[in-house]
Amino acid sequence: MATLNDIGLAAGINILTAIGFLLAFAILRLQPFNDRVYFPKWYLKGIRTNPSSSGIVSKFVNLDVRSYLKFLGWMPAALKMPEPELIEHAGLDSAVYLRIYLLGLKIFVPIAFFAFAILVPVNWTSNYLKDSGGKVEFSDIDRISISNVRPGSYRFWAHLSMSYAFTFWTFYVLYKEYGRVATMRLHFLATEKRRPDQFTVLVRNIPPDVDETVSQLVEHFFLVNHPDHYLTHQTVYNANKLSGLVKDKSSKGNWLVYYQGKYERNPSTRPTHKTGFLGLWGKKVDSIEFYTSEIEKISKKEIEEREKVMKDPKSIVPASFVSFKTRWAAAVCAQTQQTRNPTLWLTEWAPEPRDIYWNNLAIPHISLTFRRLVVSVSFFFLTFFFMMPIAVVQSLANIEGIIRAAPFLKPIIEVPFIKSLIQGVLPGIALKIFLILLPTILMFMSKFEGLTSISSLERRSASKYYVFILVNVFLGSIITGTAFQQLDKFIHQSASEIPITIGNSIPMKATFFITYIMVDGWAGIAGEILRLKPLIIFHIKNFFLVKTEKDREQAMDPGSIGFNTSEPQLQLYFLLGLVYAVITPFLLPFIIVFFAFAYVVYRHQIINVYNQEYESGAAFWPAVHRRIITALIISQILLMGLMTSKKAAQSTPLLLFLPVLTFYFNKLCNGRFQSAFIKNPLQEAMMKDTLERAREPNLDLKSYLSKAYIHPVFQDSSINSEEDDDMYSNSIYGEKEYEKILVPTKRQSRKNTPVPSKYDGSN
Amino acid sequence: MATLNDIGLAAGINILTAIGFLLAFAILRLQPFNDRVYFPKWYLKGIRTNPSSSGIVSKFVNLDVRSYLKFLGWMPAALKMPEPELIEHAGLDSAVYLRIYLLGLKIFVPIAFFAFAILVPVNWTSNYLKDSGGKVEFSDIDRISISNVRPGSYRFWAHLSMSYAFTFWTFYVLYKEYGRVATMRLHFLATEKRRPDQFTVLVRNIPPDVDETVSQLVEHFFLVNHPDHYLTHQTVYNANKLSGLVKDKSSKGNWLVYYQGKYERNPSTRPTHKTGFLGLWGKKVDSIEFYTSEIEKISKKEIEEREKVMKDPKSIVPASFVSFKTRWAAAVCAQTQQTRNPTLWLTEWAPEPRDIYWNNLAIPHISLTFRRLVVSVSFFFLTFFFMMPIAVVQSLANIEGIIRAAPFLKPIIEVPFIKSLIQGVLPGIALKIFLILLPTILMFMSKFEGLTSISSLERRSASKYYVFILVNVFLGSIITGTAFQQLDKFIHQSASEIPITIGNSIPMKATFFITYIMVDGWAGIAGEILRLKPLIIFHIKNFFLVKTEKDREQAMDPGSIGFNTSEPQLQLYFLLGLVYAVITPFLLPFIIVFFAFAYVVYRHQIINVYNQEYESGAAFWPAVHRRIITALIISQILLMGLMTSKKAAQSTPLLLFLPVLTFYFNKLCNGRFQSAFIKNPLQEAMMKDTLERAREPNLDLKSYLSKAYIHPVFQDSSINSEEDDDMYSNSIYGEKEYEKILVPTKRQSRKNTPVPSKYDGSN
Repeated sequence: MATLNDIGLAAGINILTAIGFLLAFAILRLQPFNDRVYFPKWYLKGIRTNPSSSGIVSKFVNLDVRSYLKFLGWMPAALKMPEPELIEHAGLDSAVYLRIYLLGLKIFVPIAFFAFAILVPVNWTSNYLKDSGGKVEFSDIDRISISNVRPGSYRFWAHLSMSYAFTFWTFYVLYKEYGRVATMRLHFLATEKRRPDQFTVLVRNIPPDVDETVSQLVEHFFLVNHPDHYLTHQTVYNANKLSGLVKDKSSKGNWLVYYQGKYERNPSTRPTHKTGFLGLWGKKVDSIEFYTSEIEKISKKEIEEREKVMKDPKSIVPASFVSFKTRWAAAVCAQTQQTRNPTLWLTEWAPEPRDIYWNNLAIPHISLTFRRLVVSVSFFFLTFFFMMPIAVVQSLANIEGIIRAAPFLKPIIEVPFIKSLIQGVLPGIALKIFLILLPTILMFMSKFEGLTSISSLERRSASKYYVFILVNVFLGSIITGTAFQQLDKFIHQSASEIPITIGNSIPMKATFFITYIMVDGWAGIAGEILRLKPLIIFHIKNFFLVKTEKDREQAMDPGSIGFNTSEPQLQLYFLLGLVYAVITPFLLPFIIVFFAFAYVVYRHQIINVYNQEYESGAAFWPAVHRRIITALIISQILLMGLMTSKKAAQSTPLLLFLPVLTFYFNKLCNGRFQSAFIKNPLQEAMMKDTLERAREPNLDLKSYLSKAYIHPVFQDSSINSEEDDDMYSNSIYGEKEYEKILVPTKRQSRKNTPVPSKYDGSN
Repeated sequence: MATLNDIGLAAGINILTAIGFLLAFAILRLQPFNDRVYFPKWYLKGIRTNPSSSGIVSKFVNLDVRSYLKFLGWMPAALKMPEPELIEHAGLDSAVYLRIYLLGLKIFVPIAFFAFAILVPVNWTSNYLKDSGGKVEFSDIDRISISNVRPGSYRFWAHLSMSYAFTFWTFYVLYKEYGRVATMRLHFLATEKRRPDQFTVLVRNIPPDVDETVSQLVEHFFLVNHPDHYLTHQTVYNANKLSGLVKDKSSKGNWLVYYQGKYERNPSTRPTHKTGFLGLWGKKVDSIEFYTSEIEKISKKEIEEREKVMKDPKSIVPASFVSFKTRWAAAVCAQTQQTRNPTLWLTEWAPEPRDIYWNNLAIPHISLTFRRLVVSVSFFFLTFFFMMPIAVVQSLANIEGIIRAAPFLKPIIEVPFIKSLIQGVLPGIALKIFLILLPTILMFMSKFEGLTSISSLERRSASKYYVFILVNVFLGSIITGTAFQQLDKFIHQSASEIPITIGNSIPMKATFFITYIMVDGWAGIAGEILRLKPLIIFHIKNFFLVKTEKDREQAMDPGSIGFNTSEPQLQLYFLLGLVYAVITPFLLPFIIVFFAFAYVVYRHQIINVYNQEYESGAAFWPAVHRRIITALIISQILLMGLMTSKKAAQSTPLLLFLPVLTFYFNKLCNGRFQSAFIKNPLQEAMMKDTLERAREPNLDLKSYLSKAYIHPVFQDSSINSEEDDDMYSNSIYGEKEYEKILVPTKRQSRKNTPVPSKYDGSN
C-alpha cells in the first residue's frame, strides 16, 4: 500500500502538471490571435470584436509584460459575476450546473471537518495495525483510517454515529438545494420573455385518416376539443434527407475554399487530389473544378428534395406543434390526456425550438416500448461485456497478428524498441478508443430510444454513462476483474456477502482513488481550461478556410458543457466522497480541492467560452439529485458490509435503517419539488397571461408563432434569420423583471456600452 | 407423498362437504322466511316485497315439493343474465370482478389441454422414478410430473418450449382482457347518467390564509385560475366526532328497542342490566329508562356538536369539492397542477359521493410520506414477524399457563380429554383469530395511509393482503418455517440459489396444494353461498329488533364482494396454476374446477345478494393485471431454479429471457391501457358536454350539484333523501344508451312490471 510519501510524490507531479497547464493557459489566452479560442462567448454575444491594436505584431502577440504577471488573475474575475447576471449571460442551465460543484463543497467541507475532528483521532489512537506487529503492512494513511480500529471494538460507535450525522447533513443540503433550484427554475420560467414554447404543445402519434391530411386533422381535432383556446399549428416535415444534403454541401464548400486558398497562394500549379478513400487512391482530379461541379450537383438535388418534402404528403410526419391563445391553455393541453387511446394524440410541453431533435419526431409510439427494451438489453451487455470485443481486438493487434496480416512489416516490428512499444501501447489503445467513443455510443442509444429533445437525450445519456462509470470505474477498481466476472461472482455469492466483499476491499483502495482524483480531477480540469483541441482546430481552420469575418465566426468552436459526459464523471466524486467519508477521511480534502478548483474553472469557461445550445431551465436537477441519493445508499450499504467484516455486526440493524430512510427522503423530495421540473402550474401560466394581456392587448400572437417551429433547413429560406436570432437571444429576462434582480448601476453600463470584459480576467 | 388414492379420498370428502353445503343452501333459500337473506338485492331494488302467500305456515316454510327437486336450479339461472344487464343490475365493478374468474378459465383451460397432451406423455414415458428403484418414494402424480424426467435429459426442451407457449398464451389473454375491460370502463363512463362526480374535483391541502375563510379562498382561487369554468364548491366539515355520536345513538336505540320488545313479551318484570363491561358487572339499572335517558343525552350532544361543526371555522377541513360548468373543465382541473408548490391545491377527480372516506380528508399532505413510511415498515414486520406475538400468546395459552393463572381450574384441565383438547386446539385458535383479524388490520393500515376513497382503500388493502398470502401461504408452505426464518435463510444464501431451493421443493408440494384448493376453493366457495353468518344474524335481529317493515329492511345485510379479501385469495389460484402448469400439470384441473364453480357461485351472489357500496368503474383492473404478471414472473423464476437443480442449466439463458419479456409486456400493457383507469380523456368529456348541451340547454347544474358532496351525517337534515337515492340509483345507464345495449324486448318487461325474479333460480 502506498505511503504518505508516495501520495506526496503523486500529488507533486499532478500539481506541477496542473500548474504547467495553467501557465500555458495564462500565456496563450493573452495572445490576441487566440482570443477567439478563449473568449468565443463574448464574440457570439457581439460584445467583443477583433483586437483593435494597429501594429501587425501586437495583433498576434501580447507584448504587455505586466499582464503576464498575474497569471491566476482570471480566477477572481471568474468568481466576480453575480449569479443573476450569470443566468442572464449564460442561461439557467449553466448557472445551475455550476451549483453542482458548490453542492459538493457544501456537503463535503463540514463532513471533512467533523471527520478530521472526530474520526481521525479515534482511528489514530486505536493502534490496531501497530499492535498486530509486522504482519500487516500499513502506512500513515491507514493509521487514520477505519482499518486501524480493532475488530469488534466499541470505537465503531463513533463511525456509526458519524455515518448518521453525515447522512442527515447530506439530506439537509440536498433538500435545501433541490428547493432552491426549483425556485430558481420557477422564477426563471415566470420572468422569461415571451417565447414560442410557452404557447405550444408537441402533439405526437396523430392517427392516420383517409379523408383528411394531417394538418386538417389537427385543426379539426383541436377546434373541437379545445374550442376556445386553439390558435394555430405547424406540421412537421420529415426533412432528414434534406438536412443531410445541406450538411454535405457545406462540407464540400469547405474543401472548395481550402483548394481555392491553396491555388491563390501558389498560382503556378492547380491543386489536385484523388477521389478515393482519404485521398489515398482513385482518379486524380482538378480539385477546384471537382468541388465546384459537386456542389452544383448537390444544389440541384437539394432544390428537388426541398420541393418534394413540401409537396409529398408522405413526408409529413404524424406529429405537429399546436399553439394556443394563452399559456394557460397550452399548460392544460400538455398535462391532459386527449383521447381514449393513450397512445394517440400524445401531448407534451414543446421543447424550445433550438432544443428539438427533429429526427425522432417521426417514430411511432408503438415501437417505443420495443426500442426501450432493445436499448436496455444492449446497454446491459455494453456495461458488463464491453471488455470482450476489446479483448478480441487486443489479441488481434498483437505482434503475431500484425506479422500475419502484413509480413513485410516483420523486420521493423522485431526491433526491440518498437516491439516493446507495440506490446505496451497497442492493447491500451483499443480500450482508449472505446472509452473515447463511449459517450457517442451512449448518445446513439438514447437517440434510438426516440426522445424528442436534445436536452432529454443528454440527460438519458448521462444516466447511462453514470451506470457505466459506477460499474466499471468504481466497482471495477475495487474488485479486480472484468465487470462480467464480478457479475458472475456476485450471482454465486449470497446476497448478504456482496457488500461484505466490497466493503472489505474499500479501505485498501483509498490510495488508488486519491491518485485517481489527482490525475483525473486536478490535472484533468487544468487541461480543460487549456482547450488544446479547439485551439489547434481553430488555427488550422483559420489558416486554411477563413477569408471573411463571417468565416472566422464559423471557425470558432465554443463548445458546450456537455452534460452527458461531464455530469456523470462529476458524480463519481460525490460517490467517492460519501463512501470514504467514514472509512478513510484522508480522501476528503482531495475531493474538496477538486470541487473548488473545478468550480472556478467551469465558471470561467461558462462565462468566457461555452455557448449554450439550448435552455432546459435546469430540467436536469432531479437526475443530479437522484444520483447523489444513489451514491448515499451505496455508501451506506458498503459501510454495513465493512462493519460486518469488522465484527461489528451488532450495528447492522442500525445501519440497515439508513438506506430505508434515504429512500423515503428521496420520495419526500420528489413529492415536494419534482413536479416543478415536469409540469407547468396553471396559476403561473394564468399570471403571465393576465400580465401580458394588460401590457400588450393588441398582440398578434398568431403571426408571432406562425414560423417558430420550422425545421432548421427551411429556416433560411422562409423566415428572416435575424428575427429568429433575436427571438432566442440570451437576454432571456424580460426588461421589467430584470431590474428586480440586477443592481441598477451595473445594468446601466451593460445596456449602453459594450461591456468591458470585466469577467474574462484579461484586464 | 400422497398417492392418487389419498387425493381421491380428500377429493371425495371435499366434494361431499360442498354438496352438503349446496343441499343446505337449496333447502334454506326456498324458505320464505330466509328470503331476505338469500335475495336481499331484489328487496333493495324494490322489485321484491314480502312473500304474499296468505297461509301462516307457507309464509315461513316452502311446502311445494317440486321446487326442491331441482336443487341446482339456481346455477343456470345465475348464468342467464347477459353481461350488459348485469352491469345495469349490479354495477360495472361487479361485472368486471366476475371476469377475473372467466380470465382464469380462459388462461388455464387451453394450458391444461396442452399440458396434458404434451407434457404428461413426456413425463410419463421418462420412467426416471421407476428406474431409480425403491430409493425414492413416488406416486402416480409424480410419474406425470417433471420429477419423473431424468436430470440433464433432453426432454426438458419440451418443458422449456411449453413454458414459452404458456407465457405467450397468458400474454395474449391478459392483453385482450385488459383492452376489453378498458373499453368497458370507457363505455360505461361515456354512457352513464349525469352524476355529480363528473363535474367535480376534490381539492386538498388548501393553504391557510389569515384574511379569508377556506370557502372564500377556494372561490377566489378558482375564479382566477379557471375563470370561464368554475361553477361552485362545497366545503368539507370535520364531522368525525358528530358521526361517532350518530352511530352511538343508533346502537343505543337498538338496545332500547330490544328491551322494549322483551318487556312487551313479558310485562311482569321490567328488564334490567348491569352497566359494566358486557353487562357482567357494575350497577344494575332499569334498561328501558337507562337507554331512554342515554339517547336523550346523546341527542342533546349531537345538536350541540352539529351547531359547533357548522359554525366553528376550525371544523372546516382544508379540502373542498369544486364543481365546474362542464365535464371538460373538471377533467382539465383534475389532471393539471395548480400552483408552484405541488403539495398545495392538490386536485384529483372526485370519487362518487358514496365512495368517499370522509375521515381522511383532513390529513395534511406533508404527513402522507411519513405515514406511508410507517405503514410500509410495520407491514414488513407484520408479514415477516407475525408469528412472534402469536407464538408468545400460544406459549401463554398452554396448560401450565392456565393453571398458573387460575389454579382452581386445575382439576378440570387435567382430565385427559379436556387436556388434549386444549393442547390441540388452543394454539390454533390464536392463529385463527389473527387470520380473521388480518383484513381489518390491513384495512386499518391503508386508512392510516390517508387514502380518500373507499375503493382505493380496498385496492390498497388487497395489495397488502396479496403480499401476505404470497409470503406466508405460498412461500410458507413450500419452505417450512416462519417467514422470518425464510428471510434469514435467503439473506444468507447466494442470490442464484434462492430459486433453486424453492424450485426444488415445488414438485413435492403439489399434493399439498391440491388438497388446499379442494378445502379452500371448493368447499370454501360452497360455504360462501350458504351465508351462514348473515343467516343467523338476520334471524336474531328479526326476532329481537324488527318491528316495522323498515326495521326488517335494515336488518338485511346483503354484504358486498369485499374486494380487499376475495381478490387476493383468488390470485393465489392464478399463482398456483401458473407455477404448476409446467411442473405438475395434474394440479390444473382442480384449479379449473375452482374457477368455474366460483364463477357460478359469485355470479349468483352478485345478482341476488350483494349490494355494491360504491361504483369505481372497474378501477381495480390494473392491480389485478399486475398481480397476474407478478405470478407469471414468479413461476418463470421458480422454473429456472428447478431446471438448474435438474442439471438442465443450459436452458437458464433462455428462461432468463422470459421474466424480462414479461416485465416489458407489462410496461406495454400499462402504456396502452392504464391511463383509461386513471385519467379522464378530454375528448370523451367534451363529447358528453356537447350532447348534454344539445339535449338540455336550460339545465340548472348549480342547484343539481349544490348538495351533492355533503357529509352523510348532514344529509338527512339538509336534503331530501329520496332525491339522493334517485341520484345514485343502480340504473346507471342513461335511457338512450341503455337501448343500444339491451335487447329491446327484455327492456319492455323490465320497465313496466316488477321483474319476475327470473335470475334468482327460485322458479
